[in-house]
Parts: sequence; structure tokens; C-alpha cells
Amino acid sequence: MREKITSSQNKRVKQWRALTTKKGRQATQSYLLEGWHLVHEALLAHQPVTAIMGTAEQLAAHAADLPATAPTFELTESIAKTIGDANTPQGIFATMPIAADDVLDPQTVQGGWLFLDQVQDPGNIGTMVRTADAAGLRGVVLGLGSASRYLPKVLRAMQGSQFHVEVVEADLHQWIQAFTARHLPVYGTNLDPQAQDYRNVDPVTTGAIVMGNEGNGMAPDLQQLTTRNLYIPIKGQAESLNVAVAAGIVMFRLFG
Amino acid sequence: MREKITSSQNKRVKQWRALTTKKGRQATQSYLLEGWHLVHEALLAHQPVTAIMGTAEQLAAHAADLPATAPTFELTESIAKTIGDANTPQGIFATMPIAADDVLDPQTVQGGWLFLDQVQDPGNIGTMVRTADAAGLRGVVLGLGSASRYLPKVLRAMQGSQFHVEVVEADLHQWIQAFTARHLPVYGTNLDPQAQDYRNVDPVTTGAIVMGNEGNGMAPDLQQLTTRNLYIPIKGQAESLNVAVAAGIVMFRLFG
Repeated sequence: MREKITSSQNKRVKQWRALTTKKGRQATQSYLLEGWHLVHEALLAHQPVTAIMGTAEQLAAHAADLPATAPTFELTESIAKTIGDANTPQGIFATMPIAADDVLDPQTVQGGWLFLDQVQDPGNIGTMVRTADAAGLRGVVLGLGSASRYLPKVLRAMQGSQFHVEVVEADLHQWIQAFTARHLPVYGTNLDPQAQDYRNVDPVTTGAIVMGNEGNGMAPDLQQLTTRNLYIPIKGQAESLNVAVAAGIVMFRLFG
Repeated sequence: MREKITSSQNKRVKQWRALTTKKGRQATQSYLLEGWHLVHEALLAHQPVTAIMGTAEQLAAHAADLPATAPTFELTESIAKTIGDANTPQGIFATMPIAADDVLDPQTVQGGWLFLDQVQDPGNIGTMVRTADAAGLRGVVLGLGSASRYLPKVLRAMQGSQFHVEVVEADLHQWIQAFTARHLPVYGTNLDPQAQDYRNVDPVTTGAIVMGNEGNGMAPDLQQLTTRNLYIPIKGQAESLNVAVAAGIVMFRLFG
């Protein structure tokens, strides 16, 4: 199952290179994992890795952890450098199929959920998925208009937590309404001191927290749909908190 | 007090350009603020801005907020693009003197403090200063080996909170020992479940939290000096929390 690739014009190489773009991911319905940490996390979580690609050195270094069943491609050093978008490429990659988004039903899911409304910064999204994992949540729903969960920077910041919790893209209107129809709490967040102090809310086992866009917060129409909107009292002169920090504070209070 | 600069070989222009490097900052004992948000925050906080530089368009746009007393330099568009390190330069800057670090005495300071031990990521440092401001802390001490508080990325992530709270560089051994000698609590953080659950510690008014390096945590010798070391229980499979998220959770619990 091991093939050696030496031509940078190889068709597969071109496809792997294209995985840093949305068009390229859609063409092959797959995305790229860069670096051993992510590849290893995927293997440990028994994810359906479709190919493993690496330099001879990297494949040898991790031989004991590589599954015999996955198609494996040995790349030259120079080809390996052209794949992915890391500043300091490690020379090892894997491809994964893009997940279907309709397998989870908001009418039946359980546990804690984080809903992200138009969050833009890849690092923030990835960090929130990692924090949701650490806080014991079941999953994260990226609403329409959030950055893609397959952006290389999002994947890096998630640090493998995408294999421990669900990460789906869906319409938040539907998810919020499905939760509230089930009488499950959905807590919005905003900077309005008219909202409720997050410390005055009891911890929950099944329910959701909604975090909004970095600059504009949650969309007003979504704020209308929530059970209640919470805020974190700011004591100093900072105008706001970083969204990932705010999400961490509220998640560890409500679900932690 | 307004001078027009049209030569990219102008001596001042060369000095401003050099402010993205440590050598350049030390040569003139000053650092650069990029973009209107930071320049404005500095002016609002009555900081000792030593010069304001901008394109004709930017200087006109903010004329009402610019102090008549500060030396002001009008730059051509092409010169403005060579200053600073922002990806999308806004064309307005200011210079500030590097602060003296010995004006604050750990024997007498009051309020909440965040101590950073060898934190490396500029975004993390800046976000923690912003969070410390929001949580009502008095200041942040960057220990030896942390990234510089004058790195452009640190300055950007602080979002002006550096003008609301103290940000100093100092030896954390001295600060921790000075606090504990005054019987003020200093709480270290580490991933060791033998440490104390952060939720079981009472809020404090004067004291400190120590956050460690992203990969290695707090230095063992500093862990020995603290009043107690805390940890945040991880419920899921994530190996750890982002340091800025963890700092936010602990700061808002202990000082918020």
C-alpha cells in the first residue's frame, strides 16, 4: 500500500496542494491534516483517514504508529514543502473525507453544545473547539457565515479536539429552535449589561451557549430566539473580551 | 508642529521602520503604535506619545482627536506602507517611550496581578493583558524569557489595555517572594491533578496568578515558591487548554 512520488506534476500532489482552498476541498470532498500531532490524533481516534503522505524520514520516524491498511505515499522533501500552509512544514500529512452535516439531529442530541454565530477568526474557532472538548461538551455547531472548520489554521488550533467532539456546520436558527422546543436552555451572550450575569445561572447538562462575531456579537434575530442572554461583567476599562476567552469562562461555568 | 516627509531615506523614517526590531527599539528607547485604535487609546489614556505619523488622509480623518502639542509628521502613502508590520496598514502611527521597569515595587503594590512565566506566543500575551484589564487586575508582570511586550503582535492583541493596567518586565522570583513575604497569595497553575481545583479557592483582592509556558507550563523552581498551585479539571479528551483561555477562567474566578 506504499507508493513513492517523485514528480511534482503528479495528479495526487496537485490535488493535495489544492486542499488549502475551498474549491480544492470540494473537488475531492476531502481535507488535509498537517503535522504529526494532528495525524496522530486522527489515527488514535480511529478516524477514516484516506491517505497518509510523508517524507521518507517522517514515515520512518512514525512507522510504529502508522496503520498498515491506509494508502501511504512517500514524498520527496521538495514536494512535501509544497503541500499545506504551515510556516515550518513537518513533512507528514493525511487526508480525511469531509464529514456529512446532516447526521446529527438537534431534536435528539444530548450534552453541552457551543453554537458559533459568524465567528471569523480561525484561531478563535479552533481554540473554542479545543476548550469545548476540555469542558466536556458534546459538540460545536458553526452557523452559516462562520469561517470553515477545514481551514488549515482552524484545524491547527483545534489540536485534535475535532476528533473528540462533534464539529458541524448548520443553521443556528434551526438548532436554537429545536433546543428551546425541547425545553433545553440556550444561553446567548452579548455585551449588554441588561443581560443576565453569567454567574447567576445554574450549571446545565444538556443545553447550549451561543458566541457571536468578534466585532458585532450575536445577530439580533438569534438573540430573540434564546432562552436568555448572558454577559460577563467587565471590571476594568477593556471594551470587551476576546471571544475565545469569553467562551472559555462561560463554558467552564455552565458545563465545567 | 507638523512636518511633511517625502523621502524614504529620511532619518526619522529609517528609525520608525526599525521599531519592529528589538535593536531598533533599544536604539531610540521607543516603540511603535500602529493603527488608529491603538493610537487613539494611547491619547485617551494621556500617554506620553512622542510623535504622531500618518498619511494626509489619516491625519485629516482624525484631526479632531489629535493633540496640537505632539510633533506630527505627514507621510506619503508609499512611505507609510514601509512602517510597522500590519498586513493591512492603516497609515497612522505613533511613537511611545519604552517604560522604565523599576518604578513598581513588589513590596508595596496592591490589587490583582498576573505573572507570565516564559509565555512565548505574542497573541496569547496580548490577549492575557486585555483579559487582566477586563477582570479588574492592576497589572501584568512578564518574567524573564517571555516574549517582549513591544512586539507589534503583542501590542495589537492588547488592544489598548496596556494603557489601563501596568505591564512590566521583571524577575518573577523576586515578585513571587515579595508577595508571599507580605502574606499575599500567589497561585501557580499547572496540569497536575495533585494541584488544587481552582474552584475551591476563595476570591482575593490583592494577590497573583502565575501562568506558564505554552508547552512546558510553569518552571518547577517557581512552582516551589507559590502559596499554592491550581489546576482546571479537564473533563474531555483535550490535553490542555490554551494558556490565554485558562488564564481568563482563573482570573475571572479569583478576581472577577
